[in-house]
Amino acid sequence: MNGSVHRVNVHVINTGSELLLGDVVNTHLSFIARAILPLGLRVARQFTVPDGPAIADALRTSFGEAQIVFVTGGLGPTTDDITRETAAELLQLELHLDADVANAITLRLAARKIELTDRILRQAQVPHGAVTLANEHGTAPGLYLAANAALHGKSPHLFLLPGPPRELQPMFKTGVLQILKRIAPPQEQIDFQTFRLAGIGESVIEKKVGPQILALEGVELGYCARPAEVDVRIIGPSSSVKKAARILDREFQSSIFTSTGESLEMVVIRLLTTKRALLATAESCTGGLLAHRLTNVPGSSVAYAGGYITYANELKSDSLGVAASVIEKYGAVSKQVAIAMAEGARARAHTDFALATTGIAGPAGGTPEKPVGTVYVALARENAPTKVQRFFFPNDRETFKQMATQFALEMLRQSLTAL
Amino acid sequence: MNGSVHRVNVHVINTGSELLLGDVVNTHLSFIARAILPLGLRVARQFTVPDGPAIADALRTSFGEAQIVFVTGGLGPTTDDITRETAAELLQLELHLDADVANAITLRLAARKIELTDRILRQAQVPHGAVTLANEHGTAPGLYLAANAALHGKSPHLFLLPGPPRELQPMFKTGVLQILKRIAPPQEQIDFQTFRLAGIGESVIEKKVGPQILALEGVELGYCARPAEVDVRIIGPSSSVKKAARILDREFQSSIFTSTGESLEMVVIRLLTTKRALLATAESCTGGLLAHRLTNVPGSSVAYAGGYITYANELKSDSLGVAASVIEKYGAVSKQVAIAMAEGARARAHTDFALATTGIAGPAGGTPEKPVGTVYVALARENAPTKVQRFFFPNDRETFKQMATQFALEMLRQSLTAL
Repeated sequence: MNGSVHRVNVHVINTGSELLLGDVVNTHLSFIARAILPLGLRVARQFTVPDGPAIADALRTSFGEAQIVFVTGGLGPTTDDITRETAAELLQLELHLDADVANAITLRLAARKIELTDRILRQAQVPHGAVTLANEHGTAPGLYLAANAALHGKSPHLFLLPGPPRELQPMFKTGVLQILKRIAPPQEQIDFQTFRLAGIGESVIEKKVGPQILALEGVELGYCARPAEVDVRIIGPSSSVKKAARILDREFQSSIFTSTGESLEMVVIRLLTTKRALLATAESCTGGLLAHRLTNVPGSSVAYAGGYITYANELKSDSLGVAASVIEKYGAVSKQVAIAMAEGARARAHTDFALATTGIAGPAGGTPEKPVGTVYVALARENAPTKVQRFFFPNDRETFKQMATQFALEMLRQSLTAL
Repeated sequence: MNGSVHRVNVHVINTGSELLLGDVVNTHLSFIARAILPLGLRVARQFTVPDGPAIADALRTSFGEAQIVFVTGGLGPTTDDITRETAAELLQLELHLDADVANAITLRLAARKIELTDRILRQAQVPHGAVTLANEHGTAPGLYLAANAALHGKSPHLFLLPGPPRELQPMFKTGVLQILKRIAPPQEQIDFQTFRLAGIGESVIEKKVGPQILALEGVELGYCARPAEVDVRIIGPSSSVKKAARILDREFQSSIFTSTGESLEMVVIRLLTTKRALLATAESCTGGLLAHRLTNVPGSSVAYAGGYITYANELKSDSLGVAASVIEKYGAVSKQVAIAMAEGARARAHTDFALATTGIAGPAGGTPEKPVGTVYVALARENAPTKVQRFFFPNDRETFKQMATQFALEMLRQSLTAL
């Protein structure tokens, strides 16, 4: 991903008591910040307020300081959803029932055989002059209110967006970005680019290229570390960003799986598809996450045949033909079993490649030789020796699964790029 | 989850440009909120501000409104880390070099063969009267400044904490909670309880019980909607919370899968384990998510044998013994195939139960009779007819998978509770 950055004052106001009670981690700020960066916009301030009257205070603060304000949440059907009404009141705008929205809601509910209630129809109330943003994944539309200099106190460009990420994100990528492209001021010459690396630690990257990159003129260097993945973002004058890109390429080229924002699984499915290769999976310790990640990619059925989750040893033998004697002799968590699982999966699913994982996710099941966190990843392919690697991820269960699948996908990506 | 809650005003101020650029998802709010809830404390407001002078504005705002303020970030060695200095200035406190802290930092760096610079030693500067909180995983100590009524404007209890979660979280669990236990006001009798319901919409719940519950004295009603799941939280006097619980039980008992914070998959694994029943899965459209969710539960290997991901039709026949003629006649997305998948999985994995999913996740692959979003879920069990249900989730791919697995797990949970 690359582009350039402005100095416009953007505020994000997240409403929702569930955020302040810790039930839900707020991913809106990070999503919005990344989504608007290509337009050269960055967030100056973010606030989280509970459902209810507090929204008004937050809006008043932002009205005074920001040119663009995003509000998330509080558009739903329940009594504590009052964002729409609060904004309308502050902007002194009448609410009216929007026929198109009401119609869209009615159709949506009918398709789902859900009864239409007055509460649900509240979501069709629209402030005078607001632009509605279609919600493909929920009933409440988003609302855009253009900046109003006439209003005493002068109002910013105001976007009211639904709280659920699955509703907000598609709406943002289409409706919101379209409007932002129109209202965003002309681009200064500040560029940025994001590189995603698999299987390398942030500190290693920082140590190897951090000083060199920060020595470049006007450069801002940002890291986003995920399990077995680091995003490196460079912001600065385009000449410096280009130099930084060359430095990263020189040091880590083989580990950079994208500079266009693709996920690792997307890259793997794309490579398999272009090479007309078919993949199968055999998972023990990752328990289906590998398959889940692959099948999250639209069109993955062309490249992914399916897989086996062999938690029980009997299934390793029955489903994959791993000899009971091998499990007996080396243990279910072993190089030999990982190899047999991968080769068994490839043979039975008739695919070109097969990935297998076997390990100890924990918290129980560790031994001195094979402590919790131990995992073997094997990659079988036609007419080539099966590769196997041992890793150690002494983390919580979900991080362990995420890291194991990350290294498995990276092992496959390396083989595919080498083809 | 249940307990009791105060009316103390707690603010969280997160500093860090990386948060506002979206490089890092802010997990501090959710962590702190969950950590203080058992003490009866809740967060009233949260702010994210960039590194630098903006911290002062945020602190001034909170000083006026809050009794307890947590600030994260800006304690580090770099020039834009000015939280410590900013707070000291606002509180009119001198900074001095704390010998113990300086010593701890010196030892830590020596152990890591890192050169000690003035920049790094800045982190040993401590405002007069501050309590230092040991940092097991970094150089900058946390700082606690007790509330100061004498100060003009009156200051709240102020905690300055490091930005990295791996440094903040251990410090919070030890040092911070200890102090909070001392300063937290005596518990009022305000309780809370969260009920999680599967397969029912927020608006249906709101309509059926919202008014009755809100009619109870001093009750706060909150909803958190996830795909095919709604959390209902009730906060208020314990008598009212008890009444609310009875109302919910009366209307939705069979759909409430927990009031103790368990996930649906945890409940399913617990029920299977206590009933000594074994489960297998056969997934087409959910592509491994069902297995992934089940295997996220520690100890799931006792209750979950494994499964099959049969994306390709050949695998439906090879792995599960679904007759090619049945797929031919009814289509891969059909009641008949779902049933055959579930029964095949149960037979081949030798389990008591088997869940199967087959559907069209989209975006492509829909037909007029079976549009994108159509899914069949089948549940096979010993000595009982196989159950099958058709659902329609016209959502994005990941939400579709989440909802399909949610209804599959709920179908199993219902059967298990009926046993």
